[in-house]
Amino acid sequence: MTPLGDSFHVFDTTLRDGAQREGISYSVNDKLAVARLLDSLGVGFIEGGWPGAMPKDTEFFARAAAGELTLKHAQLVAFGSTRKAGVKVQEDAQVRALLAAQTPVVTLVAKSDRRHIERALRTDVAENCAMVRDTVRYLVDEGRRVFLDAEHFFDGFAFDPDTALRVLESAVEGGADVVVLCDTNGGQLPLGLAETVADVVARTGFRVGIHCQDDTSCAVANTIAAVQAGATHVQCTANGYGERAGNADLFAVVGNLVTKLGLPVLPTESLAELTRVSHALAEIANIAPDTHQAYVGSSAFAHKAGLHASAIKVDPELYNHIDPDTVGNDMRVLVTEMAGRASLELKGREFGIDLTRRPDALTNVVRKVKELEAGGWSFEAADASLELLLKEELSELDEPPFVLESYRVVLDHHRDGKIVSEATVKVHVAGERVIATAEGNGPVHALDAALRKALLPHLSWLDAVELNDYKVRILPGSHDSAEHGTDAVTRVLVESTDGEREWTTVGVHGNIVEASWLALCDALVHKAARVTRSRG
Amino acid sequence: MTPLGDSFHVFDTTLRDGAQREGISYSVNDKLAVARLLDSLGVGFIEGGWPGAMPKDTEFFARAAAGELTLKHAQLVAFGSTRKAGVKVQEDAQVRALLAAQTPVVTLVAKSDRRHIERALRTDVAENCAMVRDTVRYLVDEGRRVFLDAEHFFDGFAFDPDTALRVLESAVEGGADVVVLCDTNGGQLPLGLAETVADVVARTGFRVGIHCQDDTSCAVANTIAAVQAGATHVQCTANGYGERAGNADLFAVVGNLVTKLGLPVLPTESLAELTRVSHALAEIANIAPDTHQAYVGSSAFAHKAGLHASAIKVDPELYNHIDPDTVGNDMRVLVTEMAGRASLELKGREFGIDLTRRPDALTNVVRKVKELEAGGWSFEAADASLELLLKEELSELDEPPFVLESYRVVLDHHRDGKIVSEATVKVHVAGERVIATAEGNGPVHALDAALRKALLPHLSWLDAVELNDYKVRILPGSHDSAEHGTDAVTRVLVESTDGEREWTTVGVHGNIVEASWLALCDALVHKAARVTRSRG
Repeated sequence: MTPLGDSFHVFDTTLRDGAQREGISYSVNDKLAVARLLDSLGVGFIEGGWPGAMPKDTEFFARAAAGELTLKHAQLVAFGSTRKAGVKVQEDAQVRALLAAQTPVVTLVAKSDRRHIERALRTDVAENCAMVRDTVRYLVDEGRRVFLDAEHFFDGFAFDPDTALRVLESAVEGGADVVVLCDTNGGQLPLGLAETVADVVARTGFRVGIHCQDDTSCAVANTIAAVQAGATHVQCTANGYGERAGNADLFAVVGNLVTKLGLPVLPTESLAELTRVSHALAEIANIAPDTHQAYVGSSAFAHKAGLHASAIKVDPELYNHIDPDTVGNDMRVLVTEMAGRASLELKGREFGIDLTRRPDALTNVVRKVKELEAGGWSFEAADASLELLLKEELSELDEPPFVLESYRVVLDHHRDGKIVSEATVKVHVAGERVIATAEGNGPVHALDAALRKALLPHLSWLDAVELNDYKVRILPGSHDSAEHGTDAVTRVLVESTDGEREWTTVGVHGNIVEASWLALCDALVHKAARVTRSRG
Repeated sequence: MTPLGDSFHVFDTTLRDGAQREGISYSVNDKLAVARLLDSLGVGFIEGGWPGAMPKDTEFFARAAAGELTLKHAQLVAFGSTRKAGVKVQEDAQVRALLAAQTPVVTLVAKSDRRHIERALRTDVAENCAMVRDTVRYLVDEGRRVFLDAEHFFDGFAFDPDTALRVLESAVEGGADVVVLCDTNGGQLPLGLAETVADVVARTGFRVGIHCQDDTSCAVANTIAAVQAGATHVQCTANGYGERAGNADLFAVVGNLVTKLGLPVLPTESLAELTRVSHALAEIANIAPDTHQAYVGSSAFAHKAGLHASAIKVDPELYNHIDPDTVGNDMRVLVTEMAGRASLELKGREFGIDLTRRPDALTNVVRKVKELEAGGWSFEAADASLELLLKEELSELDEPPFVLESYRVVLDHHRDGKIVSEATVKVHVAGERVIATAEGNGPVHALDAALRKALLPHLSWLDAVELNDYKVRILPGSHDSAEHGTDAVTRVLVESTDGEREWTTVGVHGNIVEASWLALCDALVHKAARVTRSRG
């Protein structure tokens, strides 16, 4: 329970509306894992799906009820529509499926825009209102707490406020606790939306909730504005997942409510978990985390030095809207072509290296970074390579785990159209000279495979290391010499993982294979340094 | 000029503040291309960078002034800071660099938060105001139009409104035209921000601009709220690129201003270009377009079948906040083949091919394009490859100018560190079998060189063909098979020129060299078709 208790609801619909996002397809196990993470964060309500309409959702509720889901904070919610027009509520199969889901709370969706009632539902306002009233009352009589999602409310209210309000009244007459005003098409802007919310609260006195889509890029802002106008129930999805442009992002909404409006809408200790939970939920959804997401993105507190670097060092709070620790995130200073001493000093501190006492080394590193960046290197996304550079300058690096003698890559496009990539490496590792050959589906893949084949018998930790991501950027050659576009410099970024952490390395060369080789080597040297240290 | 003329400014700072985004590193050629695209859209102002502080920006302004950038709509803007404390303005090197940039407009950034003046700048309010007044006046006397970016304005105004307003007054006394209120740390929410903007406008009567960062996920909403409160100058970046969580997204801001507030802030014909320009700018930044971006994302009007599917078909306007055509986007739940046919028909017309009378061929091309795009191909930026595809389907292509038998690329990293790339091609051209070997500074360069060596004696027009640009994007492999990051699919774009026109071709393959080969071949086949036609 949060300090605000039932007086303010954080209502998560990642599993229902969030699952509408193009590309998301949760298994039932995924859904259970998502629910547990959301519960650990302390949200008040978790909308699990639409039983009866979606077979996976029906199974999710069945397995949850059978004991596979034990919630500490949240109440589980089933979503569904009202009885059909002209059908008795107790005979409506979908309403019965809602009861069968055995959740303490049900959200009912209902039309509140007269055009939708008449053109999509093909009934009239009176019957629509009866459908709402009957269904809410039936579920309340069966012991459920009921919230009403008033679909297309803002468009409907603008078109015909009487109809929109009559739908809300019918729900409350039936016994609904909260009427949720939905910006289903996502066309609202905050000032207008806040006015409407305040108007509805003033006219009805009902407890009002808000549900926003992000089609104007204002879903978070609209949600916050609604709260400022009197809403006490916010519907969000993790990372803003949802149909079209998505929904209001749970993490930004909660971040704003807590740190900007001072509303303790989550248990106090949960705020520092926002970043971790956001990334874990992205993992389950199989969507790369948005690096630039507010509050929780890996770049959300990343500063490209330049203008502010020296000042940031002295006074970080002058340059961040909140302390990143609050939400479990980190401040990072990006080392770029504008890099100076101040930003490298800060960077060193991130790596646990105190450069203030090594002014000469710092001078050398600054010079080296500038030279490299002039040649196309970029360390802003390659912390691991920068760390190696710093440590090399400070003579803090051990012997490298292996030394290359030579490699050869052969790529054949055969007469029959078959393409074969083969690489041979000759390396010295653990006192031995090793030669290994492997094939791959491209030159870099083949080289990586050959290197692994050569090293694995001697470096057992290599087994856990995998390539997560591989990025290539062609940098134009100098303007005068660019006779051919292929005459350019190639920058390769490699993200590696050992199952526990990720690190990124960079390689730059006129030859894409050599650039990739450099980044691959840095990745292994960086891992080796950690292995040595943890043993030492 | 837009219908609003100078009374409303769309001010783009993609090239200055947008370049602060982690991962963006524009070359000078990139910057020129970005400026041309933004100008084609009809923005009023393009802030090109910080001359004097960033060597690349200095070069950009020099090349722009030397005639490489001709703008139809926009005015070019140089960004810089005021004179340093205790220095005469005419002796300040950075201010002189601003003049040397030869732009009609200059944006000066100044501190407006007393804590920043005292703690970061280490001077007092009086000197800070003198720095602003002196520098603005000096630039105005030199014939520049000057806008003032009041950094950290909202935090500063909340902390000490008198200081914040004195800074604005100093700028206007010096002759500044617009004072831009900056939410530099991005901590604002719309309702509060709108109040402050209205307050400043009421107290000062100055022309006010707005510049928002996205740290609360409210940058777009804050920008719109500021306009509703009286701001008549909005600073944005393409796709919201910018430091930390980014800036206000130009496309969402413009979309909202035009379609929600009815302000014609761009030339009428530009709105339908938003989607195309957004994607082209992502391509130049080498950042994958955000599929869920409001207005312009490929999912922005994509409806997952379910609750609404059948109703959407009948009444699409009930389920979209705007008509997607308005911004050049598509609704994707309707049979996409219809949209596909229409755009391919249009495309065909561009190439001088009438597809309306060839419905079967059109059906086949639509199917083929869809299959290829599912495999990672993208014709959005590769018209020449699309044209070849269309002509092949219509049997309008001549015999290809050459036929590949096989190629081999060998890449040696020698013991002494020397790296050699060598390629051999076996091709049939003009009735002969030709074998040629060449070296290059990378595998693709070597392959290109060998192919040219083989063909040039037989195809004299090849001499004029050069590669202008070469771009690589790694597309993630399927989730199941992505054991290694290097196991992905590679898309290569090649831009070629013959001195008269440029054309772009695309190749996709698991092997980067083969992908490049496909794009290189398309480039030559496309040129050959033109040569044949002009002879015929």
